[in-house]
Amino acid sequence: MDEPAVGRTRVAMVMATIRQRIAGRSLTAGAKLPSIRGLAGTLKVSASTVVEAYERLVAEGAIHSRPGSGFFVASQTAPLSLSEIGPRLDRAIDPFWISRQSLEAGPGDLKPGCGWLPPAWLPEDSLRRALRSVSRADPAVLSEYSSPLGLPPLRQLIARRMAERGMEASPDQIVLADSGTQAIDILCRFLIEPGDTVLVDDPCYFNFHALLRAHRARIVGVPYTPTGPDVALFAQALAEHRPRLYITNSGIHNPTGATLSPVVAHKLLKLAHQCALTIIEDDIFADFEPLPGARLAAYDGLDRVIHIGSFSKTLSASARCGFIAARRDWIEGLTDLKIATSFGGGRLNAELVLRVLSDGGYRKHVETLRSRLAKARFEVAAKLKAMGIMPWIEPQAGMFLWARLPDGLDAADIARAALARNVVLAPGNAFSLSQTATNFLRFNVSQTSDERIFDVLRAVLAQARDGGA
Amino acid sequence: MDEPAVGRTRVAMVMATIRQRIAGRSLTAGAKLPSIRGLAGTLKVSASTVVEAYERLVAEGAIHSRPGSGFFVASQTAPLSLSEIGPRLDRAIDPFWISRQSLEAGPGDLKPGCGWLPPAWLPEDSLRRALRSVSRADPAVLSEYSSPLGLPPLRQLIARRMAERGMEASPDQIVLADSGTQAIDILCRFLIEPGDTVLVDDPCYFNFHALLRAHRARIVGVPYTPTGPDVALFAQALAEHRPRLYITNSGIHNPTGATLSPVVAHKLLKLAHQCALTIIEDDIFADFEPLPGARLAAYDGLDRVIHIGSFSKTLSASARCGFIAARRDWIEGLTDLKIATSFGGGRLNAELVLRVLSDGGYRKHVETLRSRLAKARFEVAAKLKAMGIMPWIEPQAGMFLWARLPDGLDAADIARAALARNVVLAPGNAFSLSQTATNFLRFNVSQTSDERIFDVLRAVLAQARDGGA
Repeated sequence: MDEPAVGRTRVAMVMATIRQRIAGRSLTAGAKLPSIRGLAGTLKVSASTVVEAYERLVAEGAIHSRPGSGFFVASQTAPLSLSEIGPRLDRAIDPFWISRQSLEAGPGDLKPGCGWLPPAWLPEDSLRRALRSVSRADPAVLSEYSSPLGLPPLRQLIARRMAERGMEASPDQIVLADSGTQAIDILCRFLIEPGDTVLVDDPCYFNFHALLRAHRARIVGVPYTPTGPDVALFAQALAEHRPRLYITNSGIHNPTGATLSPVVAHKLLKLAHQCALTIIEDDIFADFEPLPGARLAAYDGLDRVIHIGSFSKTLSASARCGFIAARRDWIEGLTDLKIATSFGGGRLNAELVLRVLSDGGYRKHVETLRSRLAKARFEVAAKLKAMGIMPWIEPQAGMFLWARLPDGLDAADIARAALARNVVLAPGNAFSLSQTATNFLRFNVSQTSDERIFDVLRAVLAQARDGGA
Repeated sequence: MDEPAVGRTRVAMVMATIRQRIAGRSLTAGAKLPSIRGLAGTLKVSASTVVEAYERLVAEGAIHSRPGSGFFVASQTAPLSLSEIGPRLDRAIDPFWISRQSLEAGPGDLKPGCGWLPPAWLPEDSLRRALRSVSRADPAVLSEYSSPLGLPPLRQLIARRMAERGMEASPDQIVLADSGTQAIDILCRFLIEPGDTVLVDDPCYFNFHALLRAHRARIVGVPYTPTGPDVALFAQALAEHRPRLYITNSGIHNPTGATLSPVVAHKLLKLAHQCALTIIEDDIFADFEPLPGARLAAYDGLDRVIHIGSFSKTLSASARCGFIAARRDWIEGLTDLKIATSFGGGRLNAELVLRVLSDGGYRKHVETLRSRLAKARFEVAAKLKAMGIMPWIEPQAGMFLWARLPDGLDAADIARAALARNVVLAPGNAFSLSQTATNFLRFNVSQTSDERIFDVLRAVLAQARDGGA
C-alpha cells in the first residue's frame, strides 16, 4: 500500500516474468525457481524486489517455499487447459481455432480453412465396396482386437508403398495407430520428457503446437523456406536449444504446400546425426504427390528418422488408420505404449483401409485426385490473386495455398469477420509459433470452389480496409 | 577399494534407494534430491556415506550436481520404457504380460486369461447389418471426421442408457473417445501432472498400472474387498498420500468380479469430497449386469466422479468406441485434449455402434449373454474347485473368476508353464501393485470351455507340485 509506485511496478514485472515461465512451461510443477540473487541480477532489480514478488506468488499459491532449499513451482491445481474457452465467435485464435471451427462447421458453413477433402473427392465407391466386403468377413474381423502391431497384411502393404518411395522398412518395423496424430502422440511419449525441447517448422501444422503442449514440451520454431527449413537457423537452433526431436512434413508441407529439396534433406540429416536429434517425418499427404519427392526416411534408412503416415487425407477420415515406421529396436517399446494408452487397436478400420488400398480403383482415384487438385490450385490461385491475396509459392502438389493478404491486413480479423458470415478460414498465426504469419491465410483449394467464399472474402476485405470490425 | 566392507554396503544401499525412487518416479527428471544431511538422518547413515553415494550416482549419469543448489535427477536419455523386452516365453510378468500374450495368441492358442469374449459370443448378425447399413449411408458418414464431441445421436443414446442406471448426464456432458482406454488416457492428461499420486484397487485391471506409468504418476494401491475397496485403508491412503485421482471399476470389478456395495460407495464419495479427490469410474462391463448395481456417478451426479464406458466387451472390440461423461465445465478442456492428441475421432466406429445399439437385437443379445455367462461361471467354477483352484467369491455377473491356486503355488510359474503349452493364463501379480496376488489367476469363463485348458492346468499343477520348472 505504502510502497513507492516504481517498486510496485518492478515487483509486478518480476511476478509476470515468473507467471509467464510457468504458463510457457519453461518452469514446470515442482521446478526450483531461480535464486533470489540470480533473478535480481538477470532482471536488473534489487534482491528485495524479487523477495517481495516471490512472497506474493506464494500467497497466490503459484509457488511455495521450502525453508532452506528455495522456492518451487506449486503443483498445478487446476486441470491442464490447452486453450482459452469461450463461445464460438469469441474464441481466441489459438492452435484449436481452426480445428474446432472446421470440425464444428454445420452443413451450411463453407470451410476453405479446413484441412481435408470434401466427401465427394474421396473414393466413395471403394469405401462402400470395402464395407460390404467386411460385412461378409470372418467373425474375428467384426469383433476382435487387433494384434499388438496391427493387421499384418496392411503392414506388408504399407512396407511396399514405402519401398515405392525409396524407403526401406520391413513390416515388423511398422506399427499401426488409430491415426497419424495418435502415431505422433505415441512417439512423443516414447521420445520426450516434460520440459524437453522440440523443434517445429514456423509455420507448421497448428496441431503440432497443441500436441506438444499436451506433452509439456518446450517448442522452438525454425523459419520455413520454399525448399524446407532454413538450414542455417536450424543449425543455430540445434546449438542453442539442444532439442531432442524435430517434427516436420517433408512430402508436402502444411500449411505452405512447399516440398523439401534433396539438398536441404541431406543437410538436415547431417545436422541430426551430429546433434543426436531424432526426426519425425509426418508424411500424411504422400498420396497427393505425382512424383515422390525427397524423404528423410529414404536417405536415413530409419536410423534417426521415424516415418509416420495415415489415410485420412486421401481415403477416409471416418475410418481412421495411421502408422509408425521406426527402428526395429524401438518397436517393442512403442507397442507397449500403444497398448498402455489405447490397448489393442481397432481392427475394423485397418481392414477397411486394407481393402480400399488393395482395390484396383484406389490408384485410379489418387491419379484423378492429383489432376483435380492441380486444376483447383490453379483456379483458386488465380481468383485470390485477382483480389490481391498472393500465394507465397505455387505448390507442386496437395490441397494447400499459403497466401498473403493485401495491405497488411490482419488474417485473424478477417477470419473472425468471415466466421460471422459462416465461412471458416485458417488464419496464419495459428500455424506460427513466432506469430509472424499475421497476414497469411491457408486455403484448402478442394474446399474453395463455392463463389460465396469469394463474395465473403471481398466483403470482409473491404470492411477491414474501411477499418470496420 | 580400501574402504571398509560395511561402508561399501551402506553406500550401495543409499544408491539403491535413490535409484528406486527414480525408477518409481517419486523422483522425476530435474527433481532435487534430498539434502545430504536430511537423507543421512532418514536412512540412519553418515553424511559422508550419502556424499559418496551421490558422487557415484553423478559418475553414473543418474543425477547431476548444480554447485550451490544441490543434486538433481538427470534428464532421461534413454526412451521411456514401460517394461522389459524379451522373447515371448522369457518376458517378465509385468503389466503387459497378459495383454501382449492374449493379443498375440495364434488361432491354435487357448486364452482363458484374456479379457474379452470370443467372437461367437458377440452380436455378429447385428454387426453385419450395421456394416451393410453404413455401406449405404451418406458420403459424409463414410469419409468425414466426427464433430469434436462425437456423433450426437450416439451421445444422446449413451445419456439415455446412463439414465436407466440412475446417472444423470446430458448429451453435451458426453465426449466420445476411440476406446475406454483412450477415455482414461485423456482424463489422466487432463487431471494429473507427472509425479501426482493416483489410487488404484489392489488388485486392479493391469493396464491401469501401465497407463499410469506412461503418465509418470505415483501409484498407490488400496486392498479390494468383495464389496469394494477397504474403506479404512482407503481413508488412510488419502491422508498419507494425498492422491489427486482414484481409478476403479464399480460395476463389475476387474479382476475379482466383485460388485461395489451402496454403503461402500457412499463412504468413498464422502471421503472423496473431504479430500478433493476426483474419481474415474470405469464402467466398461455395464451391459453384463442383469440388475444395475451401485454407481458412484449416480450418487455423486458427476461432480467429483467421471464416468467412462465403452462397447468393446459386449458389442465389438474391432469397431472400438468409448466415452467420457463428466462435469460440464470440463468438457471443453477434455475436447481440446482429445483433438490435440487424436484430432477428430473416427466417425465410422461410432456410426456402427449407434446402429447396433439401436437395433432391437442388442437388448436380446445382452440378455442371452448374461445367462450364458452365468452358466459358464457356474461350470468353470465347479471344474476349478474340483482341481483345488478356489474362486475368491462367486461373482454376480461378468466373465471373470478370481481364483486361488492350491498349495501356495506361484501363478507366474504356472502361467509360464501353461504358455509353453499354448494356454495364455492371467497371473495374479500382473493385477497387484503390492505383488500380493502370487497365488491367484484370473479366469475368463467365456474363454475357458475347452477341455484342453483343464488338461493343461492339471499337467502344469502336477509339474509345479513336483518342483519341475
